[in-house]
Amino acid sequence: MQQTLRLVIDCPDQVGLVAAVSVFLAENDATIVEASHHTDQQTRRFFMRHEIQADSFKLNKQDFANAFAPIASQFQMNWRLTDSADKPRMALLASHESHCLMDVLHRWHSGELDCEIPCIIANHAKMKQFADWYAIPFHFVDFKNQSKQQAFAEIERLLENYQIDLTVLARFMQILPDTLCEKLSGRAINIHHSFLPSFAGAKPYQQAYDRGVKLIGATCHYVTKDLDEGPIIEQQVIRITHSDSADDMVRKGKDCEKTALSNGLRYHLQDRVIIHHNKTVVFA
Amino acid sequence: MQQTLRLVIDCPDQVGLVAAVSVFLAENDATIVEASHHTDQQTRRFFMRHEIQADSFKLNKQDFANAFAPIASQFQMNWRLTDSADKPRMALLASHESHCLMDVLHRWHSGELDCEIPCIIANHAKMKQFADWYAIPFHFVDFKNQSKQQAFAEIERLLENYQIDLTVLARFMQILPDTLCEKLSGRAINIHHSFLPSFAGAKPYQQAYDRGVKLIGATCHYVTKDLDEGPIIEQQVIRITHSDSADDMVRKGKDCEKTALSNGLRYHLQDRVIIHHNKTVVFA
Amino acid sequence: MQQTLRLVIDCPDQVGLVAAVSVFLAENDATIVEASHHTDQQTRRFFMRHEIQADSFKLNKQDFANAFAPIASQFQMNWRLTDSADKPRMALLASHESHCLMDVLHRWHSGELDCEIPCIIANHAKMKQFADWYAIPFHFVDFKNQSKQQAFAEIERLLENYQIDLTVLARFMQILPDTLCEKLSGRAINIHHSFLPSFAGAKPYQQAYDRGVKLIGATCHYVTKDLDEGPIIEQQVIRITHSDSADDMVRKGKDCEKTALSNGLRYHLQDRVIIHHNKTVVFA
Amino acid sequence: MQQTLRLVIDCPDQVGLVAAVSVFLAENDATIVEASHHTDQQTRRFFMRHEIQADSFKLNKQDFANAFAPIASQFQMNWRLTDSADKPRMALLASHESHCLMDVLHRWHSGELDCEIPCIIANHAKMKQFADWYAIPFHFVDFKNQSKQQAFAEIERLLENYQIDLTVLARFMQILPDTLCEKLSGRAINIHHSFLPSFAGAKPYQQAYDRGVKLIGATCHYVTKDLDEGPIIEQQVIRITHSDSADDMVRKGKDCEKTALSNGLRYHLQDRVIIHHNKTVVFA
Repeated sequence: MQQTLRLVIDCPDQVGLVAAVSVFLAENDATIVEASHHTDQQTRRFFMRHEIQADSFKLNKQDFANAFAPIASQFQMNWRLTDSADKPRMALLASHESHCLMDVLHRWHSGELDCEIPCIIANHAKMKQFADWYAIPFHFVDFKNQSKQQAFAEIERLLENYQIDLTVLARFMQILPDTLCEKLSGRAINIHHSFLPSFAGAKPYQQAYDRGVKLIGATCHYVTKDLDEGPIIEQQVIRITHSDSADDMVRKGKDCEKTALSNGLRYHLQDRVIIHHNKTVVFA
Repeated sequence: MQQTLRLVIDCPDQVGLVAAVSVFLAENDATIVEASHHTDQQTRRFFMRHEIQADSFKLNKQDFANAFAPIASQFQMNWRLTDSADKPRMALLASHESHCLMDVLHRWHSGELDCEIPCIIANHAKMKQFADWYAIPFHFVDFKNQSKQQAFAEIERLLENYQIDLTVLARFMQILPDTLCEKLSGRAINIHHSFLPSFAGAKPYQQAYDRGVKLIGATCHYVTKDLDEGPIIEQQVIRITHSDSADDMVRKGKDCEKTALSNGLRYHLQDRVIIHHNKTVVFA
Repeated sequence: MQQTLRLVIDCPDQVGLVAAVSVFLAENDATIVEASHHTDQQTRRFFMRHEIQADSFKLNKQDFANAFAPIASQFQMNWRLTDSADKPRMALLASHESHCLMDVLHRWHSGELDCEIPCIIANHAKMKQFADWYAIPFHFVDFKNQSKQQAFAEIERLLENYQIDLTVLARFMQILPDTLCEKLSGRAINIHHSFLPSFAGAKPYQQAYDRGVKLIGATCHYVTKDLDEGPIIEQQVIRITHSDSADDMVRKGKDCEKTALSNGLRYHLQDRVIIHHNKTVVFA
Repeated sequence: MQQTLRLVIDCPDQVGLVAAVSVFLAENDATIVEASHHTDQQTRRFFMRHEIQADSFKLNKQDFANAFAPIASQFQMNWRLTDSADKPRMALLASHESHCLMDVLHRWHSGELDCEIPCIIANHAKMKQFADWYAIPFHFVDFKNQSKQQAFAEIERLLENYQIDLTVLARFMQILPDTLCEKLSGRAINIHHSFLPSFAGAKPYQQAYDRGVKLIGATCHYVTKDLDEGPIIEQQVIRITHSDSADDMVRKGKDCEKTALSNGLRYHLQDRVIIHHNKTVVFA
C-alpha cells in the first residue's frame, strides 16, 4: 500500500474554505488519492477529509502545521494530519469470548487493519493462547482477587506504558470507570451485541428473544461514560425467525459483531471518522 | 391460484400429535401443499400449519370441526381451519401519507394480497382520490370537529357494519383507544416507522437522526393497548449514512414501511402467523 | 426543495484541478450543498460533482459557460451544468406489467422523482387507466398489426414531439432497434429482472429457478445496442429458498425491480451518474 | 448440545407418506426437535427432514433400518439416518489464502461446526502454521515438482487414509480431475468468489470490476466436474460502489466467502441439505 497523508478538517461552513484548502494543497503539489466533503444542513458544520499521496507532497508533517496554521485559524478549523506510515498502537481488551479477538487479529495479520498491536489485555487467562500465536505480549488482569478499581488502575498503567493510541473492547464485558472513559475519549471503541439503542445493557440476545424481534444486530461505538450511549461508528443486522434458538441468535450475532467491529476499526485507523457531538461522520 | 384449506394448530408438545394429525389428514385424502412445524424449546409449545389442496380433501369446513374435535381435545389444541376461497375483509385506515395505502392497494389489485377491501377510512379527505380509482367506498372521519371518542365510535361502527376481519393502520397516526385495541386483538395490524423497540412513539426518524444510528427500519406488528409494544410480525431495515438528510431518511424509511407492511399482511392473510404471548411464529 | 445547480465534471486527473474549480466557485460566491470526488486509480480519470445553492451563485447558466470555458479547456474536461429548476422530461414505456410503472408514477406524484412526465407509451392498452389517473397523455403503440420497424418509428416520433430527455423502459419487453439505442445513448434506462450479468435475455426468473440460485435480483442500466450489457447504475437482490415457487420469485423480484429502477432514475435525474466506458460513477 | 438423530427423506409426493412416517416415529417414542417438509410443485417430489431427540427414541441406528425398510420401500424413498454423535470427518484443502481456512477452523474450535478435522492439505507450505496451532496434521502436496495427476493421486490417498467424509475446498484454487469429482460427488464443497452463475472461472473480482456491477458475492456449492456449475448451497452478496478499488472488493468479498462457506458447511454437516438434480433443498 502506498504511503498517504490524511488531512481531516471540521469547521463552520463558509464560502471559500474548500478553495483555500485546495489551493494550499495544489501549491504544495499534493496528488489527491481521495477527497470527501460533507455539510450538515441542520448545523451548517462542514467536514472534509483528503488523502494525499505522501511522495507527491512538498511538506512534511512538521512544516505542514506551520504553513497551514493561517488557513486553519481563518476558518476556525479543527484539523489533524496523520501519516499512514505512523501506525496507531492498538490495545485489545478481551474477556472469555474469542470471536472478536480472533477476527481482529487475523485481519490485522493479513494486512487489513493498518496498526500495531503491542498488547492484549484480558480478565481470562485462556486468551493467552491466541496472543501467543501472534507473538503479542499478553497481560492477564485479575478482576476477582482485587477490586475493580485496582484492576482498572492496572489496565490504565498498561495502556500508558505501551503508549496506546486506540483501546478496543473486543467483548470485554467490564464497564470502564468514568474517569477512564473521559481520559480515553475518542480513543476507545466498544462492540455492543445489539442494534443500539435497542437492548442496551446486559444480555441483549435474551432481550431480543423475549421481545420477538425479527432482526438482531451489533453496534460499534466510541466509549463514553454513559454506557452504550457513545457515538455510533457502524452497525450490522441479520434476519432471524421464530425457529432461531438463543444459541442460533448468539451464533448469528457474532458474525454481526465481527463485521461491525472490524469495519469500525478500519474506519478509525484510516482516519475516516469525525466525531461531532454524539454522532459521527464516517467517510467510508 | 388453487383453492386451499389452512389448518393452523398450537398446543403443548407431545409425542404422537403429529402422527394423529397426519393420519387424520391422510384418511381424508388430503394432498398437502405445504407443511410447517415448530417447537419452542423454552416453553415446549408446538406450532403447526398445513396447507391442503381443497379439492383433494374429503371433508368440508363444517364436517371437519366435528371429525377433528376428538384429536383437538386430546392434545389441548388451539386450532383454526380457513378456506382460501373465504377472502378476509380488510379495512385500511389512513391519514395524510399515501405511500403505504397506495402500495397495499396496488398489491391487492395485482393479486398479491388475497382479501377483499370493503372500505378505506381516513382522517384526511385527500385519500379519497386513491379509493375512488380502485372503486372502494371511502369514509372520512373527522378528528377535528368532534371528540376523539366520537371519531373512534364512528370508526368502530364502520368496522362492524362492513364486517371487517382485519383492520390495517396504514400510517394512520391516531392512537386507538384501549377498548378498541382489545376488541380487535389479533385482528389489527400497524406499521411503525422505526426498527422497534428503538424509537417507539412519535417522530422516530428524528429520533434516529438525533441518535446517529447507521440503519433505520420499520416494524409491522399487531396492535395492543401498549403503544408500539404488540407482537412483531415483520421488520425491515436499510442502511443510512451521515450524508442522509432527514428527507432522505423519510424516503428510505418509506420503502422499509411498504415492504414490512405488505409482507406482514400477506403472512396474516394466508394464515401464516400464530401469536403466542407477545411474540409471533411466522411460517413464511 | 431549494433550487440548486449541479456541476458535473470528468477529466484526466491532474494536480491543481480541484483548486481551479474551487477557486472559480468561491469567486462566484457558490454555497456548496454537496461535493463529491472520485479518482479511478487504474485509469487515472477524475470525476467530480458539485451541487450549488442557486441563489448564492453570481452566474446564471449562460454566463457560466463563458466564464468556465478556460478552466474546462485547460484541464480537458467533459462537463455539464444543470439547474434543478429545469425539470427533465421523462417518457415511460410500458407493456402489460404495471408494478414498475405504478411505482415510478407514485414516487413522481409524491415528489420523490424530480421531473416532468409528458407521456406514457405502451404496447398494451390496459396501462391507459394508470395514465389517466395521473392525467398523463397515453399513447398505445400497436406491435401486432404493424411491423416492429413501424412501431418503433412511431415511438421515436413521440419521443421527439414530446422533446423527451430520458426514456425509461419500465418492463417494456420489446428490444429497441440499434439505431434508436444509439440515438438515445446515455438517455435511455432499462430495468432488467435479474442480477446481471447472470440471466441476461428472456425469462430470467425461470433461469434463476432452474439454476437453483439462493438470491435473485434486478438491474437498472443504460440501454445500449448490446442487450442487457449497458452500464449498470443500480442493482438490488433478495434472498430466496427452495420453498419459493416461480410465483414467489416473481413477487420478490418485483420489489427488487421497483427499488433498483427508482434509485437509478433518482440518481440520473439529479445528475449523480457519470458514464465512463461501460461503467458508471454514481455519487449517491 | 443434545444428541439427535436426523432422518432425511426424498421421494415422489403421495398422500399418506407423512402419516406413515409420523406414526412410525410416534410408535417408537420419538420426541421431534425439528421437522421440515417441502414439496416441489413442478416435479411433485417430496423432501422431509426430522431431527429426533436421541434418548427418546426406542430404536438404534441398526434396528431402525430394518424396521423402516417396508415404509421406505412402499413410498420409494431415498433416505438416510444420521446420528449427531457420529461426527463427520472433514478435510480442508487450502492454497495460499488463509481467510476461509482460519474462519472454518475458529468456528470448528468454538463448537459452531460439528465435525472432526483429521487433516489439512495444502499446496503452499505456509498454511502449516495454522494447522499447527489447532494441532491438526498438515500435508503439503507439491503441485510444482510433480504432475497435477501425481499431486491429485496424493490427495486422493490422503482422503482415503483419513477416511474423509467431506472434502472442503477452502479457496484451494486447483481444479479437481473429473474422476475425483465423481468419486466425491455430494461429498465435496467449494467456495467460489463470485455470485454464480456470474463470473465463473478465474479472477472473478477482476471480472466484476470490469463489468461494473454494484454488488459482489460468493457461492458455496457442491463440486461437480462442470467447473462452478454444481448444486448451490448458499450465496452471499455485499454492496460495492465505484469508489471500491480492486483491493476493497477482495476484502469485502472475503467476508462473503467466509459467511457463505461456513453456512454451507453447517447445513451439510447437520444433514440439512438434499441434492436433487442440480439444485438443493436446504432446511436451514
